[in-house]
Amino acid sequence: MAPPHDEHEKSQIAEGEESMAAPADKRPISTIVIIIAMRTEALPLVSKFRLSEQPDSVFPKGVPWVRYYGIYKDMNINIIWPGKDTVLGVDSVGTISASLAKGACIGDVFLASDVAFHDRRIPIPVFDLYGVGLRQAFSAPNLSKELNLKVGKLSTGDSLDMCPQDEASITANDATLKDMEGAAVAYVADLLSVPAIFVKAVTDIVDGEKPTAEEFLQNLAAVTAALDRAVTQVVDFIAGKCLSDL
Amino acid sequence: MAPPHDEHEKSQIAEGEESMAAPADKRPISTIVIIIAMRTEALPLVSKFRLSEQPDSVFPKGVPWVRYYGIYKDMNINIIWPGKDTVLGVDSVGTISASLAKGACIGDVFLASDVAFHDRRIPIPVFDLYGVGLRQAFSAPNLSKELNLKVGKLSTGDSLDMCPQDEASITANDATLKDMEGAAVAYVADLLSVPAIFVKAVTDIVDGEKPTAEEFLQNLAAVTAALDRAVTQVVDFIAGKCLSDL
Repeated sequence: MAPPHDEHEKSQIAEGEESMAAPADKRPISTIVIIIAMRTEALPLVSKFRLSEQPDSVFPKGVPWVRYYGIYKDMNINIIWPGKDTVLGVDSVGTISASLAKGACIGDVFLASDVAFHDRRIPIPVFDLYGVGLRQAFSAPNLSKELNLKVGKLSTGDSLDMCPQDEASITANDATLKDMEGAAVAYVADLLSVPAIFVKAVTDIVDGEKPTAEEFLQNLAAVTAALDRAVTQVVDFIAGKCLSDL
Repeated sequence: MAPPHDEHEKSQIAEGEESMAAPADKRPISTIVIIIAMRTEALPLVSKFRLSEQPDSVFPKGVPWVRYYGIYKDMNINIIWPGKDTVLGVDSVGTISASLAKGACIGDVFLASDVAFHDRRIPIPVFDLYGVGLRQAFSAPNLSKELNLKVGKLSTGDSLDMCPQDEASITANDATLKDMEGAAVAYVADLLSVPAIFVKAVTDIVDGEKPTAEEFLQNLAAVTAALDRAVTQVVDFIAGKCLSDL
């Protein structure tokens, strides 16, 4: 889902974790966790996979995060949406809510691409690398080939816009794609040894003529439809396969 | 611990949560959780309070976070350090590891100041406020008066340096202090309804003549000693008091 160059992205992440027995990459994938920052984009998939909101949350009491769950093609499908900000009522976008929701959940899915941060500048040796936080997504060559997905590197930051320092870091990260959650999820997935893949749909062109915010909102509906199709295809492709088949 | 103006800060946060019975603010504070990003700063306090590293971690398997625990003046004292990055070996500074460590822990303490982010620019109505994430710390007027602590607003971002956009946001936040963890901890503490206070020790002057990184490293030892004294005073002050006494 990684298009041409220099794009913003709507956050959409699928990932998973294998259970403890046998060669993990040879067992059929049994559980998928999909993290989606915007409710608008989550709902079509909730409907598609016939998921239902789980009242018995696996999350701590008081947090706004929502889990939709169901069984689809013999797989446990979870969609996690970080919920509305409890005071402001907007979707809880950004790296912190994304990493927290991930940290609280368990799944079995996988993705493809490199991810890194572009707004964590710590000019001290080694800390600089920690700030950039470059990680490889789970390699899924068959998935990208079969579904004819473009592949690109992803750069993550907490701002929708892009200041010159961010732009320099995005260039240094050799990134085609920009989002607000990916590298945070990769960080937590890495800590917990959960294979993670990142399905991203472009909402706006960072260096396009229109202001980012305006373009983002205009394109949200169309992007949601594209994301709906792509995630469904990814889940259908995963069904019955092992990690090593991806 | 908030000195003159325009300073960087070493992260040092104390916070807590009351249990479920009776008027929470009238019961003696029984548990303190202190989050410290740098191990160098944590160890003197671990020694001071005679805490020991807990092998039976309350954290998920695989994460590098470390909890030091002990009883001091009839209170449960926890110091949480997000640990070394598992690959790079540097301390896990920044908002994500700070919020995750918080999310996994429970405590009973409190602080004073306002906190907000300066590197989450989302120029869409209401999302802009979500990005700034302004929150008030727990009000502790007696604590600040008794210990003669200066009070200032705190602004948080994931970079050690400060680009012009960050500087504009820090000014807009009316912040005297800058750190890399505070507002993330405030966000999670708010979600979980945990009263939180923020004790910060200045490591460098943002607009000073020396490069930030150099100044930071030079001052770390002295700052650690100051932080050691301040946190000890805060914990001693809290001992035997209720939330409403602070």
